[in-house]
Amino acid sequence: MSDTYLKDVNFNSDGLVAAIAQDAATGRILMMAWMNREALTRTIALGEAVYFSRSRQKLWHKGESSGHTQKVSEIRLDCDGDLLCLQVDQAGGIACHTGRESCLYRVFKDGQWQTVDPVLKNPEDIYS
Amino acid sequence: MSDTYLKDVNFNSDGLVAAIAQDAATGRILMMAWMNREALTRTIALGEAVYFSRSRQKLWHKGESSGHTQKVSEIRLDCDGDLLCLQVDQAGGIACHTGRESCLYRVFKDGQWQTVDPVLKNPEDIYS
Repeated sequence: MSDTYLKDVNFNSDGLVAAIAQDAATGRILMMAWMNREALTRTIALGEAVYFSRSRQKLWHKGESSGHTQKVSEIRLDCDGDLLCLQVDQAGGIACHTGRESCLYRVFKDGQWQTVDPVLKNPEDIYS
Repeated sequence: MSDTYLKDVNFNSDGLVAAIAQDAATGRILMMAWMNREALTRTIALGEAVYFSRSRQKLWHKGESSGHTQKVSEIRLDCDGDLLCLQVDQAGGIACHTGRESCLYRVFKDGQWQTVDPVLKNPEDIYS
């Protein structure tokens, strides 16, 4: 496949573009991570989300250690090319390393961030 | 109100945090923009989305010129504090400067990005 599509993506000065994963069934936003060119190319080829870990500075096939892979059914690009949105089927129903469905589990209320979503699985059991 | 909640937000080296606006009624992701401390504080105070424009390097009350304001009903913060998600009521049903509902109007298909969403209003009419 031609990689012309990569030219439409505005990778930043670190060679990265933001990628949101949205649950294809519920519409819930699960997480945001980053992709470099190789991560996007691999995501398309594999049909599962592959990000670039900024902390580990390497490709990160989401779920490689937890089993919580993300099957990708659609990828969208925004108007200025610096945001990707993935429609995903989240294996295990858990996207967050804390064992929650979504990384967005804190709601602003009464002047502070309040945790409103339950831990579905103990992280120690996820990564053991 | 105490600004303790700002300490939980991991603003990057430019003092910014990514913010996604999601349509509260449909779940559709409308756009991503950036906020600095003042933008987040004003968003909370005003109940409408206020971002920080990186290109213009100033606060940007979304809709100030287009009328397409975003009434905010919920703000969430992710696990590592570097992503905000706003549930919004999008005035005019148009978030994108191209006159489309969402900035994410291009879908990856057959090796390229294909525009799949209609222009609802001519941008020249929006910004005139």
